[in-house]
Amino acid sequence: MTFELKILGSASATPTVGRHPTAQVLTVGTSHYLIDCGEGTQWQMLEYRVRPHHLRAIFISHLHGDHFFGLFGLLGTMHLQGRTLPLCLIGPPGLDEVLVTQARVSGLQLNFQVEFTAIDTEAHAVVYEDEVLSVRTLPMRHRIPCAGYLFEEKPRRANLLKEKLPAGLTPAQLARLAQGDDLPPDEQQPGLRHADVAGPAPTPRRYAFFSDTLYTPELAPLIAGANLLYHEATFLDEMRERATQTHHSTARQAALLARAAGVQQLLLGHFSSRYKSLEPLLTQAQEVFSDTALATEGLTVQL
Amino acid sequence: MTFELKILGSASATPTVGRHPTAQVLTVGTSHYLIDCGEGTQWQMLEYRVRPHHLRAIFISHLHGDHFFGLFGLLGTMHLQGRTLPLCLIGPPGLDEVLVTQARVSGLQLNFQVEFTAIDTEAHAVVYEDEVLSVRTLPMRHRIPCAGYLFEEKPRRANLLKEKLPAGLTPAQLARLAQGDDLPPDEQQPGLRHADVAGPAPTPRRYAFFSDTLYTPELAPLIAGANLLYHEATFLDEMRERATQTHHSTARQAALLARAAGVQQLLLGHFSSRYKSLEPLLTQAQEVFSDTALATEGLTVQL
Repeated sequence: MTFELKILGSASATPTVGRHPTAQVLTVGTSHYLIDCGEGTQWQMLEYRVRPHHLRAIFISHLHGDHFFGLFGLLGTMHLQGRTLPLCLIGPPGLDEVLVTQARVSGLQLNFQVEFTAIDTEAHAVVYEDEVLSVRTLPMRHRIPCAGYLFEEKPRRANLLKEKLPAGLTPAQLARLAQGDDLPPDEQQPGLRHADVAGPAPTPRRYAFFSDTLYTPELAPLIAGANLLYHEATFLDEMRERATQTHHSTARQAALLARAAGVQQLLLGHFSSRYKSLEPLLTQAQEVFSDTALATEGLTVQL
Repeated sequence: MTFELKILGSASATPTVGRHPTAQVLTVGTSHYLIDCGEGTQWQMLEYRVRPHHLRAIFISHLHGDHFFGLFGLLGTMHLQGRTLPLCLIGPPGLDEVLVTQARVSGLQLNFQVEFTAIDTEAHAVVYEDEVLSVRTLPMRHRIPCAGYLFEEKPRRANLLKEKLPAGLTPAQLARLAQGDDLPPDEQQPGLRHADVAGPAPTPRRYAFFSDTLYTPELAPLIAGANLLYHEATFLDEMRERATQTHHSTARQAALLARAAGVQQLLLGHFSSRYKSLEPLLTQAQEVFSDTALATEGLTVQL
């Protein structure tokens, strides 16, 4: 089953030619989830062929404009495109109020339901769940309430191992086994336990999204061993003080967290517009954690 | 003195690759005015080197997202860039409420004052004035309250005509005449009337912006003889009924209005995303009014 992250925006708040504010799409199986939605996200979705009506849920980390000013336009476009499917929206309290005010002054009544979940940005709690995914908040430390999100795949069934399957099973029996059921004994055969003919269950994949935050090493245990960590890296280490003042992180701090948590891969993003070249950010992070990449527009990571 | 219009966006509400929602910059002398501010306008300003802190005023026609969803981000950017100069914002009632709600949930307190003027979208009234420009509303007929704007240059002084100036004037006397004053008689000369040594005053230039609207021939007298008319042209004439249903205009209707008002030039914009090629819209308009052009991204018109 697909478990894929696509980066739509790599920039921090100041608009930069060729960079876009934070937005990412996570695809799990056939379900799509949008993570943050900076201004212009719907054009990035057009560019990378992510169809708005395929989105099941949108997660907003915090209410700074570069993380949610694209939301109103995207909802309006879904409406124009005739969406009727409900949409889950998960974000800090106040987001619903902005949407309601906007809709009222615009005279817009959406064709579809927006099911809003107000999160507690200081908690580590499940805020969304469906048949393939469970999502928990990660308490960020930013200037305003801000949450990251930990996306965790639901346990998948183990695949059947051909070499362990007895001959002569009917298609119906095979289907039952494939669903994870045991076969009770009958006149033809003595019964068969699923566990005896299946391999080990695949380990659920996990993606941790660290939005705008101070360096928070205390969160490492919450994401220990995750397949992928995205962490903001607004500044080079030379600007560590500025990072602290503005409640942001340096590339090196992102890497320290990745190392402490023992994740498999690290992506850096949310780059300050002052950096024309991003290579120095990558280099500083790789000195601490080698499996690091830059989360630039269009990057796709398969887990 | 410069009187120039630059087009930043030509699209209607549905996002289209390579097109942007409505936004235009009018430059009069050294003053810049933004007309509508669809999502992504600040990136278009970057692209066309319009510096946000040079803007004196922003005019919003109505509160459909494709005409104002870029405003929040642009104000935030001006704040980040350290603007302290007050900014005039002119638009329908309710716009201030959206801004206040956004600012509150984002914890954003702008460095600069936004001086908001709530317009009456059914009136033809002066809503903005400075030393170079006077702006009146034009009552559009759309699904929600909507105004166009008529930008009219303040009368400029007539230039002095060298061949009419007597010899022997001092620099101070020339400066007084150039400012439009008469010279009283003195011991050296018998006095000089400004009108006797100056050419005719240049005709003030006028730009009419017709935002989303039904065909409104009754407005032609209000913009009679304007140098330039921008008129929305969402549809081809074959879709006249759809235009009426959605309170939009066809390219041909835009041209009929231009002809009735006797304007000098017509620009068409706000194109439906269904039209990959815009030539048929241009052709239909030119059949009625030949001096028509397409208001596509980057177009600059000097008046």
